[in-house]
Amino acid sequence: MVRLKGFQELVPVEDALKTFLTKLEFRPKKISIPLPSAQNRVLAINIIAKTDLPRTNRSAVDGYAVNSRETAGATQSKPKVFKLTNGGAIGANQTKQVWTGNTVPENADSVVMLENTGMKHKTLEVWSPVIPWENVSRRGEDIRKGEVAVKIGTRLKPHHLGLIAAFGVSEVEVFEKPKIAVLATGNELAMLGSSLGENQVYDSNRISLTALCKELGTEVVDLGIAKDDEREISEKLEKGLKSAEAVITSGGTSVGGLDLVPEAVGALGEPGILVHGVAMRPGMPTALAVIGRQPIVILPGNPVAAMLGFEVFCRPLISRMLGLKDTEPRPVLLARMTRKMSTTLGRKNLVRVHVSRKKDEFIADPISARGSSMFSTMTRANGYVVVPENREGIAKGETVTVHMFESPEVVEDDV
Amino acid sequence: MVRLKGFQELVPVEDALKTFLTKLEFRPKKISIPLPSAQNRVLAINIIAKTDLPRTNRSAVDGYAVNSRETAGATQSKPKVFKLTNGGAIGANQTKQVWTGNTVPENADSVVMLENTGMKHKTLEVWSPVIPWENVSRRGEDIRKGEVAVKIGTRLKPHHLGLIAAFGVSEVEVFEKPKIAVLATGNELAMLGSSLGENQVYDSNRISLTALCKELGTEVVDLGIAKDDEREISEKLEKGLKSAEAVITSGGTSVGGLDLVPEAVGALGEPGILVHGVAMRPGMPTALAVIGRQPIVILPGNPVAAMLGFEVFCRPLISRMLGLKDTEPRPVLLARMTRKMSTTLGRKNLVRVHVSRKKDEFIADPISARGSSMFSTMTRANGYVVVPENREGIAKGETVTVHMFESPEVVEDDV
Repeated sequence: MVRLKGFQELVPVEDALKTFLTKLEFRPKKISIPLPSAQNRVLAINIIAKTDLPRTNRSAVDGYAVNSRETAGATQSKPKVFKLTNGGAIGANQTKQVWTGNTVPENADSVVMLENTGMKHKTLEVWSPVIPWENVSRRGEDIRKGEVAVKIGTRLKPHHLGLIAAFGVSEVEVFEKPKIAVLATGNELAMLGSSLGENQVYDSNRISLTALCKELGTEVVDLGIAKDDEREISEKLEKGLKSAEAVITSGGTSVGGLDLVPEAVGALGEPGILVHGVAMRPGMPTALAVIGRQPIVILPGNPVAAMLGFEVFCRPLISRMLGLKDTEPRPVLLARMTRKMSTTLGRKNLVRVHVSRKKDEFIADPISARGSSMFSTMTRANGYVVVPENREGIAKGETVTVHMFESPEVVEDDV
Repeated sequence: MVRLKGFQELVPVEDALKTFLTKLEFRPKKISIPLPSAQNRVLAINIIAKTDLPRTNRSAVDGYAVNSRETAGATQSKPKVFKLTNGGAIGANQTKQVWTGNTVPENADSVVMLENTGMKHKTLEVWSPVIPWENVSRRGEDIRKGEVAVKIGTRLKPHHLGLIAAFGVSEVEVFEKPKIAVLATGNELAMLGSSLGENQVYDSNRISLTALCKELGTEVVDLGIAKDDEREISEKLEKGLKSAEAVITSGGTSVGGLDLVPEAVGALGEPGILVHGVAMRPGMPTALAVIGRQPIVILPGNPVAAMLGFEVFCRPLISRMLGLKDTEPRPVLLARMTRKMSTTLGRKNLVRVHVSRKKDEFIADPISARGSSMFSTMTRANGYVVVPENREGIAKGETVTVHMFESPEVVEDDV
């Protein structure tokens, strides 16, 4: 049985997302991998400092380690004189030569820089006084033994890897990459490289949705294209649920008056379709389902609605599957609207904007387009603004939060 | 021969970078790869629209295609009546049923939505008028045939891949990934997992510099660790120049009074060391060299200075090697300083800050630390501010451009 379309009641985005996510459990598995492979993976344990960093009191300069009290009053004309030693400790009026990074000997609390010293008759003349701990990086000053150096749930960036390496750690526990199956549906879809029939378009959603998944760090199982046929859709969905932890589909949410994919999903098991028809623009015909414990996000076939539906529903879902604490945000910035933009009351509107730098601020130029199907609204834009349901638009001059999918034009390097 | 250290004159960053980059030629090779593999690669050709998008006039809704003039004055009580046809064109007072995305038949200039129509005796009643091109996405409205759809030098993101797919393109020409060789130098360096001797530290720079290169999309050749020995350093550098297009080293720029790596590089060929000692903080002992036509960036051994030196010198270099038009910026935003931060006049200072959202603005809290060696200045921060040479600091309340290496805390989704 197919159901005629018509969304009696559109579900607000926040409600839809909550209904969906609370039906799911997120317990990504842990896996131990070599540190260099852990780039962009999500840390599955707290990295506890195994030692102080620095491990010892270290010289921050090239020079001579001394007891600072013994340098008091030193000048070039009245230098203080020290005897050189080479041991692990200095005695009264003794000094040890140290290079940057060397451990400062016991009883030394400071280092006189090379340029403030001179050698005379095999003794060292110090020409200017130092204060306690001058030119010394103290043990534990950076991180103390036992502190959490990098938190569980952190997406590992180069500086995190560097810090973990500083403890000598060569393997690290991260969460396994989630596997997402991606399916495109529609009789109108043609494979890339093939020739088009009448009313056909090339299947671009599989490419862009796969890329969006990979951008977040998932693996992707390609389910190909299904015709507008409930049996074919069901078979592909079942394959997806077997080979991956979640399925994302595009198309068939309101095709020719029929809701083919939601129908097929509903027949697969319980609890089935949780939400169908969301108060957002674009992306209204989105549906969310859970079969057993596996999520299915059913995005519209329209390419832009599919990408923005991904932002709103798949991004929070995948973030949790990855083991992140929160939805991973895109880079954000604040920008001032160059002109008014009307939006639909009662819908969450995702307005695409082009952000550029203008003197001391960013300005956002809304991309106007009649249809959400316009690819150029994405490629002419570099970010989007989320206008909530209780607003009828954005005023000219208003400051907006922009979620960036590309960088704004290069900005000068200054304060 | 080794040269005693001492930087008579520090070169301003912009001058250093210009001297370096103008000695180099950037002509990355092109390679044709399958579209789905092209994610994050840099496009090596302009993608010209092979057809209009949409290819034909398409219905944006489910409904009936009509000549809009024939709907003038239609109301529910006085409907306009149309005869159904199923051909590629409509005649006078004819209509054709269309679903979203279908090509609109010839002579039709609009589509009446399903809900504004009714069937009566096998004819269609239209209950409200439409204007020309209402509910139609016109041929070429998104992108016109012959237009540049995606420009050469674009880093390919999911929406670019989607758009290229919409033209049926299954292979795309991108620039080859540059190969960068990474070398760490220093007697003090220990391999991860090994045990530390006195004055030793674990080699973290190779990990973080490799990750920074990969983040930009290069391949990395690992040259391992070289002891503070000019012959060993030379051998590794030669291997690097043979196996990669560029070499990045860390350490040995001012070790124990010696400039081992710059010395070794200088002996490899012409033009050799171009810059040694840069007016920046941290990262002053950085050196830049070219051997033949191959760049070598010689970063300090200090982990944070190495990472920030990468930002300042390797990021612009690698961006050009990748085929990008400009230096790829990090995500940027504008933030207001929570307090004053002093910097050194005459140096470009890279001040690490922690950015968070506070109501309608971002605020930047400078991370104060005595030493640039502090890893925690990176992990406690999420971005950095570049303070130019002619400034002695940043004032409290001043608005600064922050280059983000991590996201600020999650922001609410609102205007």
